Amino acid sequence: MTLLPRRLDQTCIEEFLSSFDNVLSDCDGVLWYGDTLLGQANEALNQLRALGKKIFYVTNNSTKSRDEYVAKCKRLGYIADKEEIVSSSYVMAQYLKQLDFNKKVYIIGMSGMTKELDDVGIGHSEVAPEPLTGHVFDLVDTIKLDPEVGAVAVGFDGHFSFPKIMRAASYLNNPNCLFICTNTDEKFPIENSSLIFPGTGCLVKCVEVVAERPPVVMGKPSEKMFSVISDKHQLKPSRTLMIGDRCNTDILFGKNCGLHTLVVLSGVTTMKDLEDWADSTDEEKHKLLADYYLPELGDLVSLLNNRNIQ
Amino acid sequence: MTLLPRRLDQTCIEEFLSSFDNVLSDCDGVLWYGDTLLGQANEALNQLRALGKKIFYVTNNSTKSRDEYVAKCKRLGYIADKEEIVSSSYVMAQYLKQLDFNKKVYIIGMSGMTKELDDVGIGHSEVAPEPLTGHVFDLVDTIKLDPEVGAVAVGFDGHFSFPKIMRAASYLNNPNCLFICTNTDEKFPIENSSLIFPGTGCLVKCVEVVAERPPVVMGKPSEKMFSVISDKHQLKPSRTLMIGDRCNTDILFGKNCGLHTLVVLSGVTTMKDLEDWADSTDEEKHKLLADYYLPELGDLVSLLNNRNIQ
Repeated sequence: MTLLPRRLDQTCIEEFLSSFDNVLSDCDGVLWYGDTLLGQANEALNQLRALGKKIFYVTNNSTKSRDEYVAKCKRLGYIADKEEIVSSSYVMAQYLKQLDFNKKVYIIGMSGMTKELDDVGIGHSEVAPEPLTGHVFDLVDTIKLDPEVGAVAVGFDGHFSFPKIMRAASYLNNPNCLFICTNTDEKFPIENSSLIFPGTGCLVKCVEVVAERPPVVMGKPSEKMFSVISDKHQLKPSRTLMIGDRCNTDILFGKNCGLHTLVVLSGVTTMKDLEDWADSTDEEKHKLLADYYLPELGDLVSLLNNRNIQ
Repeated sequence: MTLLPRRLDQTCIEEFLSSFDNVLSDCDGVLWYGDTLLGQANEALNQLRALGKKIFYVTNNSTKSRDEYVAKCKRLGYIADKEEIVSSSYVMAQYLKQLDFNKKVYIIGMSGMTKELDDVGIGHSEVAPEPLTGHVFDLVDTIKLDPEVGAVAVGFDGHFSFPKIMRAASYLNNPNCLFICTNTDEKFPIENSSLIFPGTGCLVKCVEVVAERPPVVMGKPSEKMFSVISDKHQLKPSRTLMIGDRCNTDILFGKNCGLHTLVVLSGVTTMKDLEDWADSTDEEKHKLLADYYLPELGDLVSLLNNRNIQ
């Protein structure tokens, strides 16, 4: 018996379709690549919707607000409603709201985070560049902490800087200060480049090392992301499919939450990865293996169309 | 039997002094605190020198060159010679020289690192701020990698930034590119402040997470620092004392290298820490316990003076 995900094809399409009512789809690497639509992924997702499946867009990306995601979905040909967007920034705001958090949040991040906090009426620091301007040791005299801050939230921030690390670590020196992060993705996929684009995970780990304690993670593979959706929309895990391209977040998230899983190879994960994990004696690696795989989500379109012909 | 370090006092001073010929002393938190002399530490170290002990200044701090360290020592009343200064930047340069490294080093750090590389004739990138100026995703088009770079070295850098992380991670995507760091200290001690001053360790970890591989560490607790000194000065570990204030670097380094160890409580480590580690069932914690302790190094002066009176 192989542990490899089954290739989704015409022979198993009916079984696959009958196994779920709800679809959670990761975005970058599955639906698009930066600002470029990925093949016929929009058509595939819209056809699932036409079959009566509930669709949710589930992303660890914290840089955009849900409204901005709806706009992006529409621009790339996806049907989408604000209620269907579940971003790590949104989950962060819901998490703090559930805690009745009434202090301020110090943010390392972008406007996607502040807009979601504004939506639930939670105060926060402004997001802006804070480069080192004088001598680094002068920061001891120049940095003033805001006594209202009761949480540090770290998300993606291209203006990550030493003064910001110092502020975050100093707030977190108070053991009552919450420490949360949007996600721990190590890097973003970049096509056709020898460059590596760092992800939020490396910024989070930087703060974690100096704070000497781990953050509460909002994004996949944390189950928090599913509980926010399922509490609101009463989704049964056993009737829900998770689609993703990054196995240590998307697929592990699906497994952690008891969902069906489909991995697409249009992003981070390669066929070689799947083979290596299936061959591994490390059971942790087996958790990264989805039920099904497809080269890309758009491949579903012909499977659905041929089904209608038969 | 307690595992606690023995308090160095008049009853054991002779046994202590006769156990070593060489002294390796950490600097910040032992000899000084930023730019302030720590009590009579200079007098203590100079007296040990007068007793015929060889003295070495062993620091993980990578920001200053050895010449700058000599100047600082002298300013604070320590006798010092360039050959006695062993900084993590110096060890880095020696390490690369021993490897016959003939490419360029991409540096996240300060001039302490570039000056030591200049001293051994190894090429490197310039150290300068590189803040994000445009949109973060434009970095994919604007960052050009230098094909001559064959190593990434991370040290303390107050101008740590996202573009620098991206450069380092991109160079390290080539498995032949060396990855080294000066040290992994999580933070610097700051007196009388609620602020936390981040150390090199958090910057290193940030790059490590996105590079997905660990660096070779130059500084304490790595044994590399001792081998550079002992190769040059033929020091016997069993005749060498390590003095430090940070147990997970200084004292662990001493233990790793088979040295005698003295912890002073004028920096990072507290008496409470020592008690907790001695009580712990975790044997890793026991490795942090020195042979002797003193509240501060200057306390040695009265022990040495009373000895002369007796």
